[in-house]
Amino acid sequence: MKTVGIVVEYNPFHNGHLYQLQKAKEETHADVAICIMSGNFLQRGEPALVSKWSRAKMALSAGIDLVIELPFAFSVQKAEIFAYGAVYLLNALNCSHICFGSESGQITEFHHTIDFLKQHRLRYEKYIKDFIKMGMSYPSALSKAYEALHPKNELIDLSKPNNILGFHYMDAASDINPHIQFITVKRKNAGYHDPAFNETNIASATSIRNRIQQTDQTDSIKEYIPKTSFSELQSYLSHFGQLHSWENYWDYLQYQILSKSSEELKSIYDMEEGLENRFIRAAQTAKDFQSFMETMKTKRYTWTRLQRISTQVLLNVHKKEIRSLGRKPQYIRLLGMSHSGQKYLRTIKKDLEIPLISKVSAQQNQMLALDIKATQIYAHGLQEPFRSKLRDYEYKQPPIMF
Amino acid sequence: MKTVGIVVEYNPFHNGHLYQLQKAKEETHADVAICIMSGNFLQRGEPALVSKWSRAKMALSAGIDLVIELPFAFSVQKAEIFAYGAVYLLNALNCSHICFGSESGQITEFHHTIDFLKQHRLRYEKYIKDFIKMGMSYPSALSKAYEALHPKNELIDLSKPNNILGFHYMDAASDINPHIQFITVKRKNAGYHDPAFNETNIASATSIRNRIQQTDQTDSIKEYIPKTSFSELQSYLSHFGQLHSWENYWDYLQYQILSKSSEELKSIYDMEEGLENRFIRAAQTAKDFQSFMETMKTKRYTWTRLQRISTQVLLNVHKKEIRSLGRKPQYIRLLGMSHSGQKYLRTIKKDLEIPLISKVSAQQNQMLALDIKATQIYAHGLQEPFRSKLRDYEYKQPPIMF
Repeated sequence: MKTVGIVVEYNPFHNGHLYQLQKAKEETHADVAICIMSGNFLQRGEPALVSKWSRAKMALSAGIDLVIELPFAFSVQKAEIFAYGAVYLLNALNCSHICFGSESGQITEFHHTIDFLKQHRLRYEKYIKDFIKMGMSYPSALSKAYEALHPKNELIDLSKPNNILGFHYMDAASDINPHIQFITVKRKNAGYHDPAFNETNIASATSIRNRIQQTDQTDSIKEYIPKTSFSELQSYLSHFGQLHSWENYWDYLQYQILSKSSEELKSIYDMEEGLENRFIRAAQTAKDFQSFMETMKTKRYTWTRLQRISTQVLLNVHKKEIRSLGRKPQYIRLLGMSHSGQKYLRTIKKDLEIPLISKVSAQQNQMLALDIKATQIYAHGLQEPFRSKLRDYEYKQPPIMF
Repeated sequence: MKTVGIVVEYNPFHNGHLYQLQKAKEETHADVAICIMSGNFLQRGEPALVSKWSRAKMALSAGIDLVIELPFAFSVQKAEIFAYGAVYLLNALNCSHICFGSESGQITEFHHTIDFLKQHRLRYEKYIKDFIKMGMSYPSALSKAYEALHPKNELIDLSKPNNILGFHYMDAASDINPHIQFITVKRKNAGYHDPAFNETNIASATSIRNRIQQTDQTDSIKEYIPKTSFSELQSYLSHFGQLHSWENYWDYLQYQILSKSSEELKSIYDMEEGLENRFIRAAQTAKDFQSFMETMKTKRYTWTRLQRISTQVLLNVHKKEIRSLGRKPQYIRLLGMSHSGQKYLRTIKKDLEIPLISKVSAQQNQMLALDIKATQIYAHGLQEPFRSKLRDYEYKQPPIMF
């Protein structure tokens, strides 16, 4: 069976995702579509609008055959680590093709870029270091270093977020398995960072989330997401009483910071030397997450970076913990499958090099324990009885069969 | 000037406290009454009904001349440490007399008990160890060990909570300054643990708090507390929106436990080997503080003990932190004073051996930093804007002048 893999967050699953999925299947003639999906906390360091189970259902109803969770240790990370974890899992699942959305839309441009950066690696890395020393944020430094190398026209624009991710998927594959074939689908209509809605029925996940938060109702986004996504959102609301946003966790984040010494905060993963005091000062005065972030934000520390560190603080994840986990996913956590997905799993099961996990118990490995903790704290953003209900799901819910 | 000291929590200040204060002044002919008062968290490991500032006002309006805060490092502790910290501060303030309430009411009985236990110290300590090994709680072991020594009739009953505290005040003084004179006032009508109201206008603080919580209004306790206490409670409600109870902190306690590894929980002050796993299991299922405590409670772990440990978890206080602070209070933190109190302070100020602190700034010593943290987390049980308001008080509020 031919398989295509994609790396997703589906927060929520919208028409743009559906377009990409259909294109991916069409162009690869794949029988099975596999997605590696971030769990309850996402790459930009924020809680997902709805739980991973709910997002897995959206994915399955839209035509995904296997939903695999990207472990927390990889999901709330900069692009390199995020991409490495996801591609590693797709390869572990024997995926022959990977498809990603990009601003570029031209896979040859990506190949040329990879080659170009390999040729200029030393100068590239030197530029990055210099720009960071000048006080630039890491993503800006990357993009400025790339510019400084004077890339030719047939190379991709590495200041665009989806190009960056695509580049890292391919870079990771060159290390993990150079035989993986890549295709890219040009993103339709909506730039990743574009908060405004346009006339068509495709909008970015960011603008969809903004609209939900601003209008406080899901009706306003109905035309931008498949019917199945819409009814899943409705169902989540009726089962858990709310959608999730950082503001639901602000009380806990603030409390966590106030209860910790600067020494303890310093040991949190991703916390940079000295930044812990900025966290403490901001937590002393901020009244909500928005104002906390606005106080913290500088040119050097991007919003995304600060959100990621905040997530690590919220989950109390330490540097030494992440370090001890190593750089490779240790299991394939199955969240849901279609019949084709199930059939596919049967054919590859005996050859898997890391265990396939369908259900978790309390005693598991450390990497999985972190995923469970992420769910427990994600659930803590809800009120009782919803909180206990969602927390219990983590242990009781078998993979969703579609 | 002649001074009498008392050790208090005033949660809230009631008619029984007023009776004790008047007796203390009468019997010692003191010009100045000094109280050492627990801050926002109390000896039995619970948040005070209202903040220390509010309780200081109640004390001053009832005739106390100086309100001094017992640092957190001493207030949420077993009787020995609590008593040592309080007596140390009273001695530092040059108190000639200390008065305490007791079930016994006979100071000679206390003196005899101290002598008796000194004589039998070795056997007493052996009994305590043996009883703890048999699975008894520490307080039960103390009281059973005492019984096993066959104390004569003129000795106190060491199973009574106020007798125990009184004993430890006197025991601490024998170490700190044997010249301190003690007197004791027999507690009127209400046993410390007695939750029922009686006919008179004196009731225990426990029964007063229970009544407030059960009826959810302060009117029901009007006859048991001075008018000034009553109006202070009303004022607190209107300024901060609520009174405090453990349930207001349950979300944070549960979150703190879920976010910590068992290794981290083990390092919390007062946490006994293996108990950390009991905390984790209980936090996984409990839906409120009451049910959490009921799940945790055993013969070995008393409610009070578990509440104290829960407070240490809530504040994220580590064993090594408390150990590093040493066994003596390092400052005299003034919360409020009358004119006589102020006059008295002027006469002793130059001879004080530890600093008198009227206002805290951000940079202070470690013991004081813990008091500030206690206030910040105590304030976190309120909603905004009250939370920020109470938190800011800690820095802005000068001692209350009465």
